[in-house]
Amino acid sequence: MTAASFRVERDSLGELRVPADAYWGIHTARAQENFPISDTPIGRHPALVEALATVKQAAAAANLELGLLPAATADAIAHACERVRRGELHDQFVVDVIQGGAGTSSNMNANEVVANAALERLGLSRGRYDVVHPIDDVNRSQATNDVYPTAIRIAVTRGIQGLRAELAGLAGAFADRGMAFGAIGKVGRTQLQDAVPMRLGDEFTAFAVAIREDVQRLEEVVPLLLECSLGGTAIGTGVTAPQGYRERVLNHLGELSGLPITAAAHLFEASWDTSAFLTASSLLRRCAVKLSKISSDLRLLASGPQTGLGEIRLPPRQAGSSIMPGKVNPVIPETINQIAFAVMGADVTVGIAGEAGQLQLNAFEPVIAHSLLQSVAWLTNGARILRVLCVDGILANEEVLAANAANAVGAVTALVPVIGYEAAARAATQALRTGEPIADAVAAHADLSGADVGRLLAGAG
Amino acid sequence: MTAASFRVERDSLGELRVPADAYWGIHTARAQENFPISDTPIGRHPALVEALATVKQAAAAANLELGLLPAATADAIAHACERVRRGELHDQFVVDVIQGGAGTSSNMNANEVVANAALERLGLSRGRYDVVHPIDDVNRSQATNDVYPTAIRIAVTRGIQGLRAELAGLAGAFADRGMAFGAIGKVGRTQLQDAVPMRLGDEFTAFAVAIREDVQRLEEVVPLLLECSLGGTAIGTGVTAPQGYRERVLNHLGELSGLPITAAAHLFEASWDTSAFLTASSLLRRCAVKLSKISSDLRLLASGPQTGLGEIRLPPRQAGSSIMPGKVNPVIPETINQIAFAVMGADVTVGIAGEAGQLQLNAFEPVIAHSLLQSVAWLTNGARILRVLCVDGILANEEVLAANAANAVGAVTALVPVIGYEAAARAATQALRTGEPIADAVAAHADLSGADVGRLLAGAG
Amino acid sequence: MTAASFRVERDSLGELRVPADAYWGIHTARAQENFPISDTPIGRHPALVEALATVKQAAAAANLELGLLPAATADAIAHACERVRRGELHDQFVVDVIQGGAGTSSNMNANEVVANAALERLGLSRGRYDVVHPIDDVNRSQATNDVYPTAIRIAVTRGIQGLRAELAGLAGAFADRGMAFGAIGKVGRTQLQDAVPMRLGDEFTAFAVAIREDVQRLEEVVPLLLECSLGGTAIGTGVTAPQGYRERVLNHLGELSGLPITAAAHLFEASWDTSAFLTASSLLRRCAVKLSKISSDLRLLASGPQTGLGEIRLPPRQAGSSIMPGKVNPVIPETINQIAFAVMGADVTVGIAGEAGQLQLNAFEPVIAHSLLQSVAWLTNGARILRVLCVDGILANEEVLAANAANAVGAVTALVPVIGYEAAARAATQALRTGEPIADAVAAHADLSGADVGRLLAGAG
Amino acid sequence: MTAASFRVERDSLGELRVPADAYWGIHTARAQENFPISDTPIGRHPALVEALATVKQAAAAANLELGLLPAATADAIAHACERVRRGELHDQFVVDVIQGGAGTSSNMNANEVVANAALERLGLSRGRYDVVHPIDDVNRSQATNDVYPTAIRIAVTRGIQGLRAELAGLAGAFADRGMAFGAIGKVGRTQLQDAVPMRLGDEFTAFAVAIREDVQRLEEVVPLLLECSLGGTAIGTGVTAPQGYRERVLNHLGELSGLPITAAAHLFEASWDTSAFLTASSLLRRCAVKLSKISSDLRLLASGPQTGLGEIRLPPRQAGSSIMPGKVNPVIPETINQIAFAVMGADVTVGIAGEAGQLQLNAFEPVIAHSLLQSVAWLTNGARILRVLCVDGILANEEVLAANAANAVGAVTALVPVIGYEAAARAATQALRTGEPIADAVAAHADLSGADVGRLLAGAG
Repeated sequence: MTAASFRVERDSLGELRVPADAYWGIHTARAQENFPISDTPIGRHPALVEALATVKQAAAAANLELGLLPAATADAIAHACERVRRGELHDQFVVDVIQGGAGTSSNMNANEVVANAALERLGLSRGRYDVVHPIDDVNRSQATNDVYPTAIRIAVTRGIQGLRAELAGLAGAFADRGMAFGAIGKVGRTQLQDAVPMRLGDEFTAFAVAIREDVQRLEEVVPLLLECSLGGTAIGTGVTAPQGYRERVLNHLGELSGLPITAAAHLFEASWDTSAFLTASSLLRRCAVKLSKISSDLRLLASGPQTGLGEIRLPPRQAGSSIMPGKVNPVIPETINQIAFAVMGADVTVGIAGEAGQLQLNAFEPVIAHSLLQSVAWLTNGARILRVLCVDGILANEEVLAANAANAVGAVTALVPVIGYEAAARAATQALRTGEPIADAVAAHADLSGADVGRLLAGAG
Repeated sequence: MTAASFRVERDSLGELRVPADAYWGIHTARAQENFPISDTPIGRHPALVEALATVKQAAAAANLELGLLPAATADAIAHACERVRRGELHDQFVVDVIQGGAGTSSNMNANEVVANAALERLGLSRGRYDVVHPIDDVNRSQATNDVYPTAIRIAVTRGIQGLRAELAGLAGAFADRGMAFGAIGKVGRTQLQDAVPMRLGDEFTAFAVAIREDVQRLEEVVPLLLECSLGGTAIGTGVTAPQGYRERVLNHLGELSGLPITAAAHLFEASWDTSAFLTASSLLRRCAVKLSKISSDLRLLASGPQTGLGEIRLPPRQAGSSIMPGKVNPVIPETINQIAFAVMGADVTVGIAGEAGQLQLNAFEPVIAHSLLQSVAWLTNGARILRVLCVDGILANEEVLAANAANAVGAVTALVPVIGYEAAARAATQALRTGEPIADAVAAHADLSGADVGRLLAGAG
Repeated sequence: MTAASFRVERDSLGELRVPADAYWGIHTARAQENFPISDTPIGRHPALVEALATVKQAAAAANLELGLLPAATADAIAHACERVRRGELHDQFVVDVIQGGAGTSSNMNANEVVANAALERLGLSRGRYDVVHPIDDVNRSQATNDVYPTAIRIAVTRGIQGLRAELAGLAGAFADRGMAFGAIGKVGRTQLQDAVPMRLGDEFTAFAVAIREDVQRLEEVVPLLLECSLGGTAIGTGVTAPQGYRERVLNHLGELSGLPITAAAHLFEASWDTSAFLTASSLLRRCAVKLSKISSDLRLLASGPQTGLGEIRLPPRQAGSSIMPGKVNPVIPETINQIAFAVMGADVTVGIAGEAGQLQLNAFEPVIAHSLLQSVAWLTNGARILRVLCVDGILANEEVLAANAANAVGAVTALVPVIGYEAAARAATQALRTGEPIADAVAAHADLSGADVGRLLAGAG
Repeated sequence: MTAASFRVERDSLGELRVPADAYWGIHTARAQENFPISDTPIGRHPALVEALATVKQAAAAANLELGLLPAATADAIAHACERVRRGELHDQFVVDVIQGGAGTSSNMNANEVVANAALERLGLSRGRYDVVHPIDDVNRSQATNDVYPTAIRIAVTRGIQGLRAELAGLAGAFADRGMAFGAIGKVGRTQLQDAVPMRLGDEFTAFAVAIREDVQRLEEVVPLLLECSLGGTAIGTGVTAPQGYRERVLNHLGELSGLPITAAAHLFEASWDTSAFLTASSLLRRCAVKLSKISSDLRLLASGPQTGLGEIRLPPRQAGSSIMPGKVNPVIPETINQIAFAVMGADVTVGIAGEAGQLQLNAFEPVIAHSLLQSVAWLTNGARILRVLCVDGILANEEVLAANAANAVGAVTALVPVIGYEAAARAATQALRTGEPIADAVAAHADLSGADVGRLLAGAG
């Protein structure tokens, strides 16, 4: 670095050169050196970066009201935070998503970027921390202990809101298919064996119902996520935060974020408790498991084209093979399956990290944050492509379905209350063996007229 | 078997000898032959067996009202179900907890036991299925598809109620310790490094708060669990169940069980959806993770007696070593850790099983049921021993705590707003290096009188 | 308890009454009180109990040689150990599989049972520890730190040997099916879509090959498991064990067990390292995953009977439904799937427990032992039923397979090198759309005579 | 796009515009549209991209020898592959790491990039597939079914080799610390309770031993990974690959890669079997678990500085807190813990994906590949920072250790063979209660002279 290209910053460990135009400073620089793990900077989680800035802005507002920051400083900090929240400085959030230190490096990265952006607003050069200090000013009345989990909570909430919207859209697409397929009979299957008749519409409507339940469950976790410990500072003691600060900063945070932020009930507990993250992760897993099950069903129902179940057709999305001409594969549902497997693994990661917390803090919140934010993003993208690139274009193979339904031996189930389980079983076994219509087989095993059998079977679907 | 010692039963696969005094019959016998896996019969999950009997009893009542069963038969079935529910016949529930067939064998085991107990009530010998038939009568208007998941839902709910009671007791025990320790100062720790002063009472109260949150979360899952598909019969079609049956059977089930049973919103969806089980499993994991974290904290705080943190003493429960005399180990918290690890694994099992469902049913409900019921039982037992054998007897090592608190360099944090982060950091570093009191080190690095420093530090805890 | 029905024993915590006829003593009694968790005594893992006794017997032999035990005592201990190894006293191993204390209670249970059985051999009453002491004699030169993991290693090895035998049998059964099905053509499938022609025999032979690989992998883990730390006593220091003891006890252990026991390379490391258990658990998972995949394939191939793939028939094992007459479900493969899900979860448990070890010991070995021994038992039982109750009786649906193979559009793949991918793709698409034979469609899209096409396609399967 | 800025390509689904300068073509373009999931292109896994190119180059060489490609084409393809292998075109590998289609899109991305780079070599413009065709030429004698898993196997092997080197370095660093700390006595701990005396050097040497075992285990998986199915083409049939091709392509692959590639034993099995990936993943988990355990030990031993164990000092890497001045946290070991938690989760993902394979292929290899390659990269980076930024600079707190060792009551264990367990226990209990030296307490409880006690205790460490 030439003299013009860097500035020198100091901390308790000594001095370090920082690129002159970097908004981040020495704490961020050390973190970059310490955590070259994933090649994925926290800027890749925009919601987290924006939430950090929102917290900083709320704190500055509260500090201003309490006389802890001069108006000019508070104003410059607020302006800087807004730039971050608009996405203008995401490339300055460079510390690795996998980081030791319980999120301190993420918080310090935010403190430094906001401080230098505030200095810029004041017309001063980067590093003029005598005017706006990353810790004494930007981090005023705060600790990583309360800032970082609060930011994760907001970021995950944002992610979940986006996911809910996509899931609602996907449920709508399935409901549309359910309407379109409402009248088409088919044979239901349990354990991959033919069961009783049903309608294809019911099958698709059930997918819609199942997904809508997750939309609701995901809404219910939001209040848990938004119980924030901000104001608790170090381990929930509130040390360095003056009287009245906590209420003010939470109010500002609620206003700035537009979210129904509430105060954590017990600050010491809130300082180490990760269970809202576990619950959020579990819900993402639930959603993933369900989407995966549904995707596997779509693949099964669309199997073929010659030797599979062949009940539906998925819209072709790309050539399916580099060797087998004409092959088209269910690539979109397969993507969903894989997203689900990743989310299921990430949920284990979150659980282990939660369990590993010690005493007044969980030092492993960074991997919890990364896992949650990645899972929610992948699920959101997955729900969107499943809707747009697959479900919206699904067609029924009506001939196959009709042929299946017409011959269904399982229809005999409707007669069990009339002729008894054992006679019905004999009739079914015979029909399967001989290939004769189930109605004929029933007539041979039960004391019913053909007309009665037909009437009873007709009511069964 | 001698002629007197067995009876012969028949099904669609042929004949089989069954012990003459067995309440179970041929379907159970085949299942025993088919599933010799875990050496653990379903009778080891009493809540499941009792729930199956409750369902059978509710169905008999509904069938009676609808004229589908003669009064004598319905009455005998009800009587038999009550015997099962009182635990008199648990040893007759012999099919393995790990079973193929989506629970059919569990349902058939219940059908057969109830049928033969009903025959006994009627003064008839076992196997007289011409009078009370396991399928045509006991299983009337039912399918495994709706009976089995309904029974699991009730059994898991019972388990969760018991767990909630134990967790509430445990939270109370921690709250008591929190009260008892309220005035005792200590040094809080983050990342195993000394942080700022706090009180031991806050640490224990936080445990109580954390556990009480789980008591509440576990209550919230009950309504999800109690949405039952009973009446849906095969894959949710309702086939074989007459008009009016579903409302009646759910009403009876609610009354008999004393639980707020509701009707599933969409029967086809309810037939395959396992997400209430996933949510229940996730909550058990959440609870396990939390109890494990707390147990690890207890072990850490009690570490020593000579070279550990030594802040608390756990009641000694047994000699700790077969070789090291006088050693006493934290065996109760260690048990909780291991329960938690098992529950975390079981949660993965439940997730994978849920994902593997296909089309109109999840064939893997037996392993889901077993995993959930085992987890809930172990957690309940764990919560009880943690309270009775450990928490209730925890003592504070007041001398150690007082000495730690008196010397705490971290107390300087309270001065950051006054002297700034950097001066405070220099003072802290010096105090740690030299061993001098933090107050003296602050005086050397900041423009404050000794009196001011003392006053500020005193307010910090 | 009446005076005659109990004896009083003492330990450092005080006195306790023990049933007069119990072989176990006060340490076991305290453990029963402390760990009422799973209602599953360690006697349910016979291989573990027998391995504990084998270790005790080897230690007694070494102690005798070194003059640390009188001959009469050593002889009585050996006799007692042999009784345990023959299974005569398994009901005396009553401590819960889930126990705190790093296995101390399992070791003490063994010490007490062996001591009292030795006393019995000497014609003395239970509790005469002045003659044969559970710790000073039976546990002589040992610590739970080295005894317990050594016993687990032996027990898991035994389990793996049994599993390998069952897997080999299962592989043989699949190989037999492969031979029987060798000539039957079919359409292979990737991603549930029709791919190119293959033979059913290849599909089943592949199952055999896959399972045989696991038989080999499981053999490779045995040497890792049999690196035993016995002789290391407390944390690997060897304290209390005299010079020459370690070599002797390992030699005796090798002879008594018939296993190629070796000495751990570094005793301090061996005292805390659980990685051989992790590797064993991972291999069980690998095996479980493979058996589950194969079982799912069997279920898919046997799906139907009317609306599924219907390529094979599994032997019917039981009536499949309590409502749908004649339905037969693939209950055996479904059992395997569920065993696999349980093993996959248990593997997570083992991993978490391994990670949680601290300093010189892993206190969580009991849950590791239980998880491993349960997984290996379930897999062994599963492999057996899969062979005996399913694979041995699988039949091919030759008509379905032949019809599928005859019409296979995927056969066109063989022509890609001749006519190019794009022309082949056009032909395949046309054949699928019109239903015409692929040979005709090729003739329409490529410059080939019908005879050439026929010859090329015939070579493809 | 202006006319000059794009070219038009065609596939069986129709036409699409592709940026004129893109090396990738229409199949890649469709995949980008289909899989906008993770914002992580496969180019982020350089080893995978390079392995794909190596496979393509080996195939071209074999095809040339067999007369299936003109020399000029084969030469141009080889040149293009070398460019990819040198890393010149990684930015052209743009399909998402999470993709449906069983890797087809990754293979097609490679086919297209290589084809267009070959065309460039021939002086022709992009898209001139009439001269060099992505499928008919670059993918000649190949299928995604064999190319993609082969490439993953090579890429994972490369990753494991790098990891092994870093682990060996880390083991060396621990061994150095072990040497440096060899003479320093300390008190060992089991279950966080003081146990018997040992040396700090043994503790650190044990870390080295443990890690070296993983270096060896990771070597053993390489032969399993390098059993490649290349030449099997579609589902292992070898369709489109002429006689002699398979041996040739594997030979070329071995030479080009410098790896001991072998032929898979059974091509149909190899086409769907993912167990080598499971075993690799399990070993990564094993390694992660071990590094995490060791890291947790470092954090425990370094806990303090005032109220922790304080036995060692980790090199300070960054200011530990945004609020607590002077606090320095163990950020590097905390990073390792989190990497481990992520790897443990990824291992679950790999297991679930492996289990989900169906029939002749596992469609979920992309998520397996991504999980493995991410885990191996993170572990490699973690091992490096743990060595360079932490272990190399660890210091012993000799005063603390010496004081602990001097007072160790656990030293009495050495006297158990002399005075018996019960007398030793009484002495230990007394010493702990009164604080008197253990030697004095022993003298009070056993018939030994003070000199004897001293001599015996001195021999204990």
